[in-house]
Amino acid sequence: MTFKQKLANIIRKNNSLLCIGLDPDLDKIPKHILKKKNPIFEFNKKIIDETSDLVCCYKTQFAFYASHGIPGIKALIRTIKYIHLKHPSIPVILDAKRGDIGSTATQYAKEVFDVYLADAVTVNPFLGFDSLKPFLERKDKGIIILARTSNPGAGDFQDLIINKKPLYIKVAEKVTVWNEIYKNCLMVVGATWPEQLRKVRKIAPEMFFLIPGIGAQGGDLEKTLQVGLTKNKSGLIISSSREIIFSANPRLEALKLIEEINKYR
Amino acid sequence: MTFKQKLANIIRKNNSLLCIGLDPDLDKIPKHILKKKNPIFEFNKKIIDETSDLVCCYKTQFAFYASHGIPGIKALIRTIKYIHLKHPSIPVILDAKRGDIGSTATQYAKEVFDVYLADAVTVNPFLGFDSLKPFLERKDKGIIILARTSNPGAGDFQDLIINKKPLYIKVAEKVTVWNEIYKNCLMVVGATWPEQLRKVRKIAPEMFFLIPGIGAQGGDLEKTLQVGLTKNKSGLIISSSREIIFSANPRLEALKLIEEINKYR
Repeated sequence: MTFKQKLANIIRKNNSLLCIGLDPDLDKIPKHILKKKNPIFEFNKKIIDETSDLVCCYKTQFAFYASHGIPGIKALIRTIKYIHLKHPSIPVILDAKRGDIGSTATQYAKEVFDVYLADAVTVNPFLGFDSLKPFLERKDKGIIILARTSNPGAGDFQDLIINKKPLYIKVAEKVTVWNEIYKNCLMVVGATWPEQLRKVRKIAPEMFFLIPGIGAQGGDLEKTLQVGLTKNKSGLIISSSREIIFSANPRLEALKLIEEINKYR
Repeated sequence: MTFKQKLANIIRKNNSLLCIGLDPDLDKIPKHILKKKNPIFEFNKKIIDETSDLVCCYKTQFAFYASHGIPGIKALIRTIKYIHLKHPSIPVILDAKRGDIGSTATQYAKEVFDVYLADAVTVNPFLGFDSLKPFLERKDKGIIILARTSNPGAGDFQDLIINKKPLYIKVAEKVTVWNEIYKNCLMVVGATWPEQLRKVRKIAPEMFFLIPGIGAQGGDLEKTLQVGLTKNKSGLIISSSREIIFSANPRLEALKLIEEINKYR
């Protein structure tokens, strides 16, 4: 089954567009878990077990594992394996924003899909088509290309105007062309920029977008859903991390957010 | 000592602008090394021992390690530690092209500088200033920002024209501004594009550039040096990997390339 099919099935099954970001931060993990042998994995496992009937996918942010060295990478591998084993219907996105020349990108595709066993990956388009091709050729996987990111400096380059169109629109237009060939593209559009999201939705009326920026980053959920949902009230993967995973009751926070989201669907 | 000071010292000492890329490829590593317990590290060690008096730095490409999972990451860490221990005057670049939102970039800076112990790192500017800030704030490190990459698709986005200037020039201009504050910036400009290199050199007359693309990728060394060298015949880190490390005699190949380079200095 492809990532897109897996995603469509679980969205139906769990009636949810919520993606929980598993971004472990040792400073915020409860002390009783920190004492365990594999604190990062144990922390993730608890979140996964509490929320597996509520999400459409999980997202692991590579940096939060890699910054802990070998034990961190081991926890990443173990987390993704655990999801595949216990909850095989839930796809896993590796948020790694990879981007490099073709021969190197081939190695990165191996890393992401064959070592970490992710179902989908975020990639950076700055190096152009040949840097994405080794990813796109993995047709069963989801290739999530950055268009307009959620951070304050996103506009530094992504908003620069090329022949009356900002760069992120140029990227989005290219992605729709690549998607006609490879059928496995998604885009990242930050919830912090609803006006930009509206424009990208116009270019790709049916494509799935990964939406970071709700919560801690200040994105407006209502506006995001109003302008971002597809005609059939889907097409968005709403990613939330800190507000859920470090809360006193992650399941409750996830439920609240799903309820908020589903008001507009 | 900062990366830039370390680099300047070793360029003088070894009279070399050559950077050897340690990009191990198990399909190309000699069979007798493949049989060893840590083939990637043993392969690198041999190259390092044969060339340490010939280089101005080594560059490790993250993907070629990460695609081998935990043993690959261990080999990366061991390789960099080995260089620091045996050849402490030689700086190490981690070619990882990291780029993410601020809070994540902080984790990536930890990964690169505190886990892998790199002296410098390549980063992708697509997400804008706040995605680079956690790197730039590591003032003793070298922050090597992609301007015009060496690959065939580099122009897909990097050449798009913004108010009469291509995107890679806009990036280069920003980098010179950031460098005035942080003093630790370098840029990547591919040897495959001498005309673009000439333009970037004009914008940053004294900055060090990391130059991939010589050799397998078809970059023209003579043109690169003619347009890329600074007034004092320095300012370039000429990176070569496959042609040296997989040759029958890596030391000889490195010597030949240095001789070629130094003809123009």
